[in-house]
Amino acid sequence: MKPVFVNTMPRYEILSADAISVLDRGWRRIVSEIGVQFAKPEAVELFAKAGQRVDGEVVYLDPEFVLEQVAKAPREFDVQARNPANNVHIGGNHMVFSSVYGCPFIREGDVRRDATMNDFRQLCMLSQAFEQLDSAGGVICEPNDTPLDSRHLDMIYALQTLTDKFYMGNVISGPNAVDTIAMSSILFGGREAIERTPATISLINCNSPLRWDDRMLDAQFEYNRANQPVVLTPFLLMGAMSPVSIPAALVQQLAEALAGIALAQLVRPGCPVIFGSFLSNIDMQSGSPAFGTPESAIGLLCTGQLARHYGLPFRTGGALNTSQTADAQSAYEALMTLLPTFLTGTNFVMHAAGWLEGGLVSCYEKFIIDIELLRMMQVEFTPLEITEESLAFGAHEEVGHGGHFLGAAHTMERFRDCFYRPLLSSTANFERWLKLGGKDAAARAGDIWRAKLADFEAPPMDEAIRAELEDYVIRRRAELGD
Amino acid sequence: MKPVFVNTMPRYEILSADAISVLDRGWRRIVSEIGVQFAKPEAVELFAKAGQRVDGEVVYLDPEFVLEQVAKAPREFDVQARNPANNVHIGGNHMVFSSVYGCPFIREGDVRRDATMNDFRQLCMLSQAFEQLDSAGGVICEPNDTPLDSRHLDMIYALQTLTDKFYMGNVISGPNAVDTIAMSSILFGGREAIERTPATISLINCNSPLRWDDRMLDAQFEYNRANQPVVLTPFLLMGAMSPVSIPAALVQQLAEALAGIALAQLVRPGCPVIFGSFLSNIDMQSGSPAFGTPESAIGLLCTGQLARHYGLPFRTGGALNTSQTADAQSAYEALMTLLPTFLTGTNFVMHAAGWLEGGLVSCYEKFIIDIELLRMMQVEFTPLEITEESLAFGAHEEVGHGGHFLGAAHTMERFRDCFYRPLLSSTANFERWLKLGGKDAAARAGDIWRAKLADFEAPPMDEAIRAELEDYVIRRRAELGD
Repeated sequence: MKPVFVNTMPRYEILSADAISVLDRGWRRIVSEIGVQFAKPEAVELFAKAGQRVDGEVVYLDPEFVLEQVAKAPREFDVQARNPANNVHIGGNHMVFSSVYGCPFIREGDVRRDATMNDFRQLCMLSQAFEQLDSAGGVICEPNDTPLDSRHLDMIYALQTLTDKFYMGNVISGPNAVDTIAMSSILFGGREAIERTPATISLINCNSPLRWDDRMLDAQFEYNRANQPVVLTPFLLMGAMSPVSIPAALVQQLAEALAGIALAQLVRPGCPVIFGSFLSNIDMQSGSPAFGTPESAIGLLCTGQLARHYGLPFRTGGALNTSQTADAQSAYEALMTLLPTFLTGTNFVMHAAGWLEGGLVSCYEKFIIDIELLRMMQVEFTPLEITEESLAFGAHEEVGHGGHFLGAAHTMERFRDCFYRPLLSSTANFERWLKLGGKDAAARAGDIWRAKLADFEAPPMDEAIRAELEDYVIRRRAELGD
Repeated sequence: MKPVFVNTMPRYEILSADAISVLDRGWRRIVSEIGVQFAKPEAVELFAKAGQRVDGEVVYLDPEFVLEQVAKAPREFDVQARNPANNVHIGGNHMVFSSVYGCPFIREGDVRRDATMNDFRQLCMLSQAFEQLDSAGGVICEPNDTPLDSRHLDMIYALQTLTDKFYMGNVISGPNAVDTIAMSSILFGGREAIERTPATISLINCNSPLRWDDRMLDAQFEYNRANQPVVLTPFLLMGAMSPVSIPAALVQQLAEALAGIALAQLVRPGCPVIFGSFLSNIDMQSGSPAFGTPESAIGLLCTGQLARHYGLPFRTGGALNTSQTADAQSAYEALMTLLPTFLTGTNFVMHAAGWLEGGLVSCYEKFIIDIELLRMMQVEFTPLEITEESLAFGAHEEVGHGGHFLGAAHTMERFRDCFYRPLLSSTANFERWLKLGGKDAAARAGDIWRAKLADFEAPPMDEAIRAELEDYVIRRRAELGD
């Protein structure tokens, strides 16, 4: 049984109490003076009934009311997986990781092409195979060779059968959310079972600035009613969806996320939510999104501190980058995001493996690079035990001056597990590296994912449940006309 | 005038007071019970005269005596450069960066070969050209096409003429140190001028475990006498030069470095020193050194905290890695080292640009990758200003709900410098990237360093001084028989 990673290292906090006050006043002013738009009449009605001023779709929120609603959300909660050993806890020091999400394209070595359902299945298998991932996520890639209306059924079925980890719910529409909940009810023994302990997490993005759209809100309502956690995520690329200022983006992020969380609590008081953050900036020269930037790292650190300030489990970070291939840039930008993710102790990390090209591409090789990064981070963020015994004084007595410790008793007793053992990184000397084919990290990553797929064994599953899920998919696909 | 980078962000500290006590007791026990070997009779005599017990070359040190000597070292000091705008301050929140050091090989794109004097000069030029580097360092690569006995003269001359930044002294032998000091005296107007404000920093490595070698000590004595700072650096690859335990390595590092610093203070009380750290581990599977490991990152964070505890400016970190090419591994391992380097606020960072293949290779492309990392780190570790004005409330009033900020007045006023502008990273969309040649980060880095060299202009120099330096080199080369 693999325990979820618990980060008990110190948090790296960079906001002063004064800075937090300024930011706190900022979101209050936005929600009360500019208001937040909700493109769903039921949402607006809920706010109106709760005494908030509304004007068309725009709701002007009393900040104290928002905080009262936010206080109803649980600080921590569990999410169950088909295999109970893969259950996760969201919140506190726990860090939960899922694969890349939402990519229309695939990169496999030098080839970039449309993603297919076969890619989706393969990425499910890889997500299942690596214990660093607690979930394959949801839309690991867009299976473009399947019909648009019903592909969510194929994706959920693949996530449910090829992995025994928790998965993310479909959010394209209310009906898609209903299908996710129905299929999860089949898998976990009824709706009551998943309302008691949620089985999915779903990503609800804000149409930033300050607008929550109808289809996502439809999905949110279904998940809130079913007590399935939603990640309410402002989608902020500074310069496009927010001002070109990190403090301004942080304030906007608070306004949007807290307003969305307040709505969730009006739909079902006490339902689980995650404070979401997707915060980076536009490259003002190219006009394209940029990831792994210094600004995004700073924003990430601040986001964690703010989420803790408001007592909410939070999502941010990942292995983000804008690179076109699994090269040096893809790696340093990914780590520019992942290391702050660990420094701030993010509770739910989406896009933790496979993300390339600003999220347009799911890349197999990058997936392996990111798994290596996650493995290293989990060791780096494990507290050091410093005891008298750890000082190994006896080894010094044995070795003396100018000798070496390779054959010392202390070394021989510990050499197997004293240090991190890489999955991908090579320490081979040049001659040996050449002899092994002279492969760079991306080429070696290609060997690793292919071998991992070749060895894949699907987790065992109750055949009756599998058949019931399959029946559901067939019936619904027919209803949807595909 | 380029200011040295001052890191006023919080330090990320992971050692508890209890842990520091355990480590403090650890080094005291090593220096007093196992002792430290000094392979230079004058060194042993100095310790004996100062009342320490000696047995052959081994000195058994009273920890309180060590700390009394350490307390004589300045906590902070200045190092002057030929161009006063490039003077640096060592200590406090200041971070000073120099290029890779000591590599016998060069990688240039797909070619790996012996380094030459031409490479040395080119790497001087690149170090001069990028303001992220405060120094080209010393042996940026080994100029293997020049005679061994006199190549230090060529290297110092190149550093003095092709850069106007401070440089590192040669440490191969006492006479080489004398040459460094003599040539620096010419450049800076006499020995008295460099004794008043040092003009070089020199790297003195320990032959770990617990042995300081004769030739390095000879060089150290010369530099100490001339008041030139030395970086007293335990060279610890856990598993070979120290036990396979981070706490044990930290304790050994303290024992070795503090003993070396005590010696420097016996040679010349008050002379400037830097607490050095070069701490990583052996890959216990390949037997090769490993860099950019989780263990090295943890060691790095602890080292900074310990150096501050003992009130010493310190050196650690860099852009270390074991990769064979400028690929994803080279980048993530480099950042695995550089990010903790900034988190702990290292005062002097060697190997900050160009390091590849465990330090065997100076790589031009990696040099550019590392410059990009340094540029990003310097932005990331600049405190955020959070004021009412930074919240850009007016931009929200202008844009409203669901709009965009691309053309907002707040954006238009700031778009030129609101975000980090990359040197190397590409945010181009796929089609544009293909049109630009479909080059990965390493290939683009190749274009950048070539263009930078093509544009190089040597910093202006007093012709009489240049001639005097040249005469010195010619005379000494003849004396050395080359």
